[in-house]
Amino acid sequence: MTRPRGVVVVTGSELVRGERTDRNGPFLAAELLRLGIEPARIAIVGDGAAELEAALREGLEADLCVVSGGLGPTHDDRTVQMLARAAGLELAVDPELEAEIEGFSRRIAERLKRPYGDFAEGVRKQATLPAGALVIGVAGTAPALVLGRNGSAVVVLPGPPPELQRLWPAALESAPVRAVLSRARVPDRRALRFYGASESTVARALAEAGGEADGLTATICAREFEIHVDLVAEKDARESADRLASALRERLGEYLFAEDERPVEALVLDSARELGLTVATAESCTGGLVAARLTSVPGSSDVFRGGIVAYANDVKAAEVGVPEELLARHGAVSPEVAQALAAGARERLGADVGIGVSGIAGPGGGTPEKPVGRVYLHAEGPRSGLARELDLGGDRAAVRARATAAALHLARALLAQIRDKGA
Amino acid sequence: MTRPRGVVVVTGSELVRGERTDRNGPFLAAELLRLGIEPARIAIVGDGAAELEAALREGLEADLCVVSGGLGPTHDDRTVQMLARAAGLELAVDPELEAEIEGFSRRIAERLKRPYGDFAEGVRKQATLPAGALVIGVAGTAPALVLGRNGSAVVVLPGPPPELQRLWPAALESAPVRAVLSRARVPDRRALRFYGASESTVARALAEAGGEADGLTATICAREFEIHVDLVAEKDARESADRLASALRERLGEYLFAEDERPVEALVLDSARELGLTVATAESCTGGLVAARLTSVPGSSDVFRGGIVAYANDVKAAEVGVPEELLARHGAVSPEVAQALAAGARERLGADVGIGVSGIAGPGGGTPEKPVGRVYLHAEGPRSGLARELDLGGDRAAVRARATAAALHLARALLAQIRDKGA
Repeated sequence: MTRPRGVVVVTGSELVRGERTDRNGPFLAAELLRLGIEPARIAIVGDGAAELEAALREGLEADLCVVSGGLGPTHDDRTVQMLARAAGLELAVDPELEAEIEGFSRRIAERLKRPYGDFAEGVRKQATLPAGALVIGVAGTAPALVLGRNGSAVVVLPGPPPELQRLWPAALESAPVRAVLSRARVPDRRALRFYGASESTVARALAEAGGEADGLTATICAREFEIHVDLVAEKDARESADRLASALRERLGEYLFAEDERPVEALVLDSARELGLTVATAESCTGGLVAARLTSVPGSSDVFRGGIVAYANDVKAAEVGVPEELLARHGAVSPEVAQALAAGARERLGADVGIGVSGIAGPGGGTPEKPVGRVYLHAEGPRSGLARELDLGGDRAAVRARATAAALHLARALLAQIRDKGA
Repeated sequence: MTRPRGVVVVTGSELVRGERTDRNGPFLAAELLRLGIEPARIAIVGDGAAELEAALREGLEADLCVVSGGLGPTHDDRTVQMLARAAGLELAVDPELEAEIEGFSRRIAERLKRPYGDFAEGVRKQATLPAGALVIGVAGTAPALVLGRNGSAVVVLPGPPPELQRLWPAALESAPVRAVLSRARVPDRRALRFYGASESTVARALAEAGGEADGLTATICAREFEIHVDLVAEKDARESADRLASALRERLGEYLFAEDERPVEALVLDSARELGLTVATAESCTGGLVAARLTSVPGSSDVFRGGIVAYANDVKAAEVGVPEELLARHGAVSPEVAQALAAGARERLGADVGIGVSGIAGPGGGTPEKPVGRVYLHAEGPRSGLARELDLGGDRAAVRARATAAALHLARALLAQIRDKGA
């Protein structure tokens, strides 16, 4: 028995033109996977009628099709109209829905001091539904819909990601979607995350450990030096998954840093919290990204004290206490200055653990001795520290992102060392 | 005459599962648009043979189809095989390509101290091409290909975004792609960017100014409080585009802040540079994101002196010089503290313009008086300042991103005021 097949159709001309990156496709695909439905395709199309209709027609072949966007009041919002055409359904105004949208629109009209007549056509358009569609909620003037068809279902949601995410649970509660979910089998998922091993090393270990089996898929995915191995097991393949995970732990134990999905910044904060330690940063080339990732975690304020972005050299000296003599002798991009930044972060910001970053993000500023991409990292604890030198590829954004990830992993390693050795 | 139609097919199981956000689709779509080819669809599929073949089959109907990923040595890298099947072409090993990939693989085998025999099968697979395919470059062991078919073209590129972007120019130089580009008409594009006006205000002004016309499309796109209006005009609609742009300038002049694509952080740095002023930041809830956006711009170091992420209250006092009495009386999240942060950033970091941010990013920490999403911003110059209070919706990440954008716009507005009034 195969899992139900899911397709996501995202519409928006700024998305298909690459002017904005779609966030709904990844959200919905991850949701489908979680629910035991195979995300088979994400199609991004503009607001042209023919392209949208073709994408919807293909979506209708899936067990569950989720559509985002194209529900607005204007002529180029065509999702409902094209869905009706693709599904061969009549369109009709839903009087109850029209009254609800009219109420909302009258308030807008009043606020804008415009006659309601200007809105009436758009309201009628937004209250027009394919025969048999259920309204599961409204975002502003845009209705969210579910349509059942011979055991399969189509969900239509508004494009703005917060609205889409707010209305998604109501779609899951609807009868047509529940009918599809009743045929889904939620797989057993295991994540193993490695740091410091290459993708090919992990791939080889996976193959040597037996690799995929019936009902067990293994994907390897590299991001910012982390290698994520994702094992997805059907019910009768759970033992195979256990065996594979054990074998990977044995072969790559030194690189294994997590078996859950917490990002590295959360692991740093959790480790520090368990040890009763606080953290601070002093960054040069990453320009605040390390602090930004640490503070992206809710509740970080009990561990993270603060950070200094020391871009100018005299800021490094005055605010972080990096000795001027050190800057003159070794240069701002040096292991010595990275250590002084980490030590200064501890001292100036009153933290137990300091993270220091200094490097050349490019595109300018490189020398033969210290090329673009050279980064020095230092994590300094109460009684010990760890240092790292990197030569990173890619453009300015890539160098900064990779240096940030590496700095967080260095702090994670230091905290693990403190926990294990008390040092 | 319609523009040539372009389709992007992205393959990667971690992408279709929503575990990673695709970057190649937006890059390639923006490239197609720039070259005068209509980006009609971005399809993201996994590595399953049937889904990939179906997506490629649809891609082959376009004038230009660009495929990313699925070129590796393992069994689940199926792009070349499925492309040959969809196009009805024979597959054969290319001896020259095999020799090149073999050389690379032998070096890897040596480094890993493994027999080359382990790699031979993968090398043969990666050197196997559909009849008539041109090799335009190699990324590691993965070849990039172009295939011409009756005036249309298929480009196959490796999945890692830096490799894809490196090999893309070679694809554009190939004869089959040049044949498609010769039929493309590069449209005239105009961007107008507004800040502080709602999307519906801009939409209304656009409609009142005449709106779209034959050969002229106008898209409105909101992101982080900015409203971008994009006018795309065919050759004979340039005058209509000029008229529409003028009318928008007239109606919405007070909100218009740019007519190019530079991000607001670049506008802040450019304005400051022109005025000979330096900039520094002191952030609480945005946790370094304002500094990170400013330092994301190459060459920012001549304007940006540094920043302080003052998370703990005593860091606000000790490092930024926010008076303890102010913190006690008004609370850390207050207009007074935002102003003190901006003033402290100027003074402590020796900058002409200071940006201060204090707020409640959530999910915890809100009160009835100061709910989650409340943010106070302050930009302080040598002789004047600007303040702003915001109540932002969305989750922690959304509040932080929107507060960051608003802080940068406040600094931009202050710099514009200094330029215009010398104050």
